[in-house]
Amino acid sequence: MSLMFLHGRFLPVEEATVPFLDRGYLFGDGVYEVYRLYGGRPFARELHVDRFYASCSGISLEVPGTRQELVGILDRIEAHAPARSYIYFHLTRGPAPRLHAWPDACNPALAVMAVELGPVPETWYRRGVAVITYEDIRWARCRVKSLNLLPNCMAMSEARARGAAEVLFVNREGFVTESATASAFAVIGGYLRTAPLTFNILPGVTRHLVLESARESGLPVRESAFTLEELQEASEVFITNTPFEILPVAVIDDRPVRGPGPMTRELMRGMARRVEEETGHPAQCSVALG
Amino acid sequence: MSLMFLHGRFLPVEEATVPFLDRGYLFGDGVYEVYRLYGGRPFARELHVDRFYASCSGISLEVPGTRQELVGILDRIEAHAPARSYIYFHLTRGPAPRLHAWPDACNPALAVMAVELGPVPETWYRRGVAVITYEDIRWARCRVKSLNLLPNCMAMSEARARGAAEVLFVNREGFVTESATASAFAVIGGYLRTAPLTFNILPGVTRHLVLESARESGLPVRESAFTLEELQEASEVFITNTPFEILPVAVIDDRPVRGPGPMTRELMRGMARRVEEETGHPAQCSVALG
Repeated sequence: MSLMFLHGRFLPVEEATVPFLDRGYLFGDGVYEVYRLYGGRPFARELHVDRFYASCSGISLEVPGTRQELVGILDRIEAHAPARSYIYFHLTRGPAPRLHAWPDACNPALAVMAVELGPVPETWYRRGVAVITYEDIRWARCRVKSLNLLPNCMAMSEARARGAAEVLFVNREGFVTESATASAFAVIGGYLRTAPLTFNILPGVTRHLVLESARESGLPVRESAFTLEELQEASEVFITNTPFEILPVAVIDDRPVRGPGPMTRELMRGMARRVEEETGHPAQCSVALG
Repeated sequence: MSLMFLHGRFLPVEEATVPFLDRGYLFGDGVYEVYRLYGGRPFARELHVDRFYASCSGISLEVPGTRQELVGILDRIEAHAPARSYIYFHLTRGPAPRLHAWPDACNPALAVMAVELGPVPETWYRRGVAVITYEDIRWARCRVKSLNLLPNCMAMSEARARGAAEVLFVNREGFVTESATASAFAVIGGYLRTAPLTFNILPGVTRHLVLESARESGLPVRESAFTLEELQEASEVFITNTPFEILPVAVIDDRPVRGPGPMTRELMRGMARRVEEETGHPAQCSVALG
């Protein structure tokens, strides 16, 4: 059993319970973050903690204690985490009588747990994964990484039922916004493209690192959303997130797309360098390199 | 302390806890219902149970046990409920390892509790309440009464901060869809209007009863959404939900609108008759009649 931190104490995750009246349970009133450990060492943690504060601010939720205290709790959970794992942490507005408006006094509940990562097939990195397109039915504040995840669950369930690993959300105007748990990229007409943050998307940490790496490598980047039609012209398609880093897309709705190309591999090399520098351990996507 | 039913047993609500890994807590993966008791007797319960099954179906969630068993549990909680209260019940997909897609095997968790209703100022029914307009930022499956309620909480918090009792959600096309916890009606050009169910709204039980009552009374009804501009021409505006029945709207964004008019009062009379017939107790809105 793995150790977690919940509302002030450390305990095994399987024994952890929360009050029925916690607003996280009755309203999904909370936000969360996920960052990865490599060989037990955190990667890009500061960026995730920054985004956590931004998400809290997006729903008027005050983080109890100082940032230093939060990081101290993360440190302790990391010390007990499996080497290949990620840290999940969330803050809910805590228990209160069931009324929609924020309670005058609340007792927010911080939870932190380590989750072991299962093995990922090497072919996912070498040849790519299948994705399906799915109507972007989410709310209009996706920049907040909230616990209202039902549309993401519905999309991922449909993907799994159709033998796919992820989805490409398509909005009402026909643009690909992002994936259910990842950001979406494509190389179209020689340009690396992804929807801009002004679209209704999460500011992905891996998305940010990939864009930074692309610019450092002198790749031509356009933060400009693409349609499904444009995607048919794409020479490379990939998705990025914290657990998987960079995953090439090989199939969209049963239609094959060209496998991992030169830009995807260049960005994987950049990611591998960065993970190695920061943690001293190899990135997962390095199985597709060298 | 009031009694509740949770995952197979009866216990005081303040002592009730749920597993941290319950998908209701981590994803808001569940649906709920609320119906009212008058003098301890349920009103329109069948319609709420019908909608509960429809919501479950909308997220591929199978209700454990039979409908008769569910109603038996509701009966038992009603027997312990305060006379002026509502019954809240929800079903989550239960505890599972944290992965978005529905788990292959799941153990859904049913919860039922009675919540005492506080007193409501008579002036709310006699003169009406203030509401604010609020961007409809919710997801695209509002016909499902899900636990993803963060946008509703944000809207109600903003309303309270501005001294209002509710909101009118306005969608991207400028139409009023409904309220954060209620359906929205207006009398415009002599017609009673409300958004049709083809809009992204909850099929409100009170909305249904009000429309039925309006048709029985021969009032001219149009299930046709109205814009904020059209609302300026409204001779009556009201919102409907289970706890409050029918609440006239007197102020929208600090702009007074005409108070409760003849149609609102006619519909209140219809509601009062129906509640009296079904439960033998007076409706709340009857304070504004006679």
